[in-house]
Amino acid sequence: MINLPRGTQDILPGESEKWQYVESKFNEWCRRFNYQEIRTPIFEHTELFQRGVGDTTDIVQKEMYTFDDRGNRSLTLRPEGTASVVRAFVQHKLHGAANQPQKLFYSGPMFRYERPQQGRMRQFVQFGIEALGSVDPAIDAEVIGLAISFYQSFGLKSLRLVLNSLGDQVSREHHREALVKHFMPHKDELCSDCQSRLEKNPLRVLDCKKDKDHPAMASAPKILDYLSEASELYFDRLKTHLDAMGIPYVVDPNLVRGLDYYNHTAFEIMSDAEGFGSITTLSGGGRYNGLVEDLGGPSTPGIGFALSVERLLMALDAEGIHLPIAQGLDCYVVSIGEKSELKAVELVHQMRLAGIQVDKDYLSRKMKAQFKTADRQQAKWVVILGDEEILNKEAMVKNMDNGEQTAVKLDQLISYIKERL
Amino acid sequence: MINLPRGTQDILPGESEKWQYVESKFNEWCRRFNYQEIRTPIFEHTELFQRGVGDTTDIVQKEMYTFDDRGNRSLTLRPEGTASVVRAFVQHKLHGAANQPQKLFYSGPMFRYERPQQGRMRQFVQFGIEALGSVDPAIDAEVIGLAISFYQSFGLKSLRLVLNSLGDQVSREHHREALVKHFMPHKDELCSDCQSRLEKNPLRVLDCKKDKDHPAMASAPKILDYLSEASELYFDRLKTHLDAMGIPYVVDPNLVRGLDYYNHTAFEIMSDAEGFGSITTLSGGGRYNGLVEDLGGPSTPGIGFALSVERLLMALDAEGIHLPIAQGLDCYVVSIGEKSELKAVELVHQMRLAGIQVDKDYLSRKMKAQFKTADRQQAKWVVILGDEEILNKEAMVKNMDNGEQTAVKLDQLISYIKERL
Repeated sequence: MINLPRGTQDILPGESEKWQYVESKFNEWCRRFNYQEIRTPIFEHTELFQRGVGDTTDIVQKEMYTFDDRGNRSLTLRPEGTASVVRAFVQHKLHGAANQPQKLFYSGPMFRYERPQQGRMRQFVQFGIEALGSVDPAIDAEVIGLAISFYQSFGLKSLRLVLNSLGDQVSREHHREALVKHFMPHKDELCSDCQSRLEKNPLRVLDCKKDKDHPAMASAPKILDYLSEASELYFDRLKTHLDAMGIPYVVDPNLVRGLDYYNHTAFEIMSDAEGFGSITTLSGGGRYNGLVEDLGGPSTPGIGFALSVERLLMALDAEGIHLPIAQGLDCYVVSIGEKSELKAVELVHQMRLAGIQVDKDYLSRKMKAQFKTADRQQAKWVVILGDEEILNKEAMVKNMDNGEQTAVKLDQLISYIKERL
Repeated sequence: MINLPRGTQDILPGESEKWQYVESKFNEWCRRFNYQEIRTPIFEHTELFQRGVGDTTDIVQKEMYTFDDRGNRSLTLRPEGTASVVRAFVQHKLHGAANQPQKLFYSGPMFRYERPQQGRMRQFVQFGIEALGSVDPAIDAEVIGLAISFYQSFGLKSLRLVLNSLGDQVSREHHREALVKHFMPHKDELCSDCQSRLEKNPLRVLDCKKDKDHPAMASAPKILDYLSEASELYFDRLKTHLDAMGIPYVVDPNLVRGLDYYNHTAFEIMSDAEGFGSITTLSGGGRYNGLVEDLGGPSTPGIGFALSVERLLMALDAEGIHLPIAQGLDCYVVSIGEKSELKAVELVHQMRLAGIQVDKDYLSRKMKAQFKTADRQQAKWVVILGDEEILNKEAMVKNMDNGEQTAVKLDQLISYIKERL
């Protein structure tokens, strides 16, 4: 027997309906906010992620599925969505499109080779949006507004929106210097990753899971104290917009996103629900004004977020929220005898063409077992076809809610059931 | 600049809506036929496809994206969907589930390293279904019925359903012997692939693209002449069912499916549309009664089909069929001045929460340019917010169909527009 690869999962009937539901809900929120879908390949040239996610990130250094194809190109299964969307934006010159900013959404599987645990699979599904071409704080507020509205629309209560500003280049340069100065005396006490981060990208030291309890962490310089005037103004206006929209938030000066390309706005949506386990971040995003240029396009600001579907479903579970998924067949056709079996095949097909959800037996089961299946499948109506009924060109139709049976002419059967669904 | 990998594509806004449309249509047909979704991983252990697709197939020999992960497991991006679905069926013991047969559908990207051409991409999207657990010809007819109904529901006219039986094991053994006897005298004239096929799997010689014009092809023994009595009866009953369902078909004794695991029913749906190019197969499927056992499960019959979304869209193009995709925004909010800008941010958010699809400007554009955007986005309604309007707690609302303008109180704006959409 061959099992599925470690860190991946099958989503079976009973579960898959939940995925369909949250997907269609996400599409609906994107429609309201006027984001349009973009679909990029499952794999990209490895260089895209090295440049677009950042050479110093854990993702690029440790977690990518990278391989050579039969033409010796180095390809990588996408570990996240933003780099691919920006690559497509540059390649198809979407900066020249009539509609600006370009407002795009995506959904699909992503891949990271990590130690599998609940909420952290090697293949996982992300929904995300990207708005490219605007530096208006109103679009930052819109992106955050879409994210939080999506979660709230399920009735989730234990949500927390955490906000920070990573500032512009000047702010980050000053903060970087302060961080190096602060951590240098403790360099030998930090993990080897952090020692290298301290040289390459000291901001990411704050994000380290190993060193998070080191005393120097709590007293580390905060980016908010190093914001340039322009960055501070930008952050203030974002907060004003969120207030106007009625969206509560907490500012956390320690919030650092795990990818290199962020600046200005950074945010995460967390769940405080009990029993949710150790992973509380549901989604995160932020502004990346340098990324389009880094990937060969013209200087273009951008902002986006991505969310994990697995964690959304975990959060729904933790709050005991059941999705309103339709249950039960419209109709089940029971047939007795070979003549009626052929008639059943014909009738079931006609009903399906007419839009009715209907099924029949395919195991030559006796009438009683067919009824049992109809019951188990929660059929709202059962149509009974016997040789006698066929002679009379009619069928018995049973309303499974109240048990009432009615004889209905075969040529009126479809409209009879359609009117009553 | 980094481009997308060869043989892959980006699906951009304007195109992605078509993909969404055909996907939701496929889901709807699966609902009517009572097939439920299963989602399997993008990659599987390589052995699955070696065993489940067949070692002698072009797919396994030449076309797979195979690589070692960081734990030195050999993984392969799935080249088709059936092997994965059957693997999941076995792993999760779905043969023991209450509902039998198990009726499953899937959709998603598949990967084959081929020379890219129109309708044959290295990453392509398939929709498919599998019915596991029944040997009733009625389920073969159902599977075919779903496939053809799906295509017909778009209004496609140039469809041809081609049918064959590959028989049971006894039939195939007799046919195999006849094939070997027939082709042996011509062995040296055949391509090297066919020379090896002749030993391993002579049926697939009939499927060869290189040797298809060799004179021995036309006179080769037909499987239909070697069907056992049981196989012939099965095929006859399938045809009787299709007749009863009103589904026309042609029997083509040369139809051979490119995968090893088929027996009994084999079918393809082709397009005869002019200008469709050389590839005319839209989808194909068949019965595979040995596959579940081959993959370590209990002996379980199965049948299914898969279709290419790319080719469906090509067929729609070739017949000049336009999908009924919604165009144009519900509403666009034009604001003039900083006060009204903040009010616009608030109002737009409230409208979205109320289900209205609405957008605004994020580029500090002047009123005239905002109106131009509203026009280009085909907004049905435009809401105009100026400082004076805000003082009066109202907005001007313009009906873009007839140009009429009405002053509407801000607290009635959402219901005003919702009632008129």
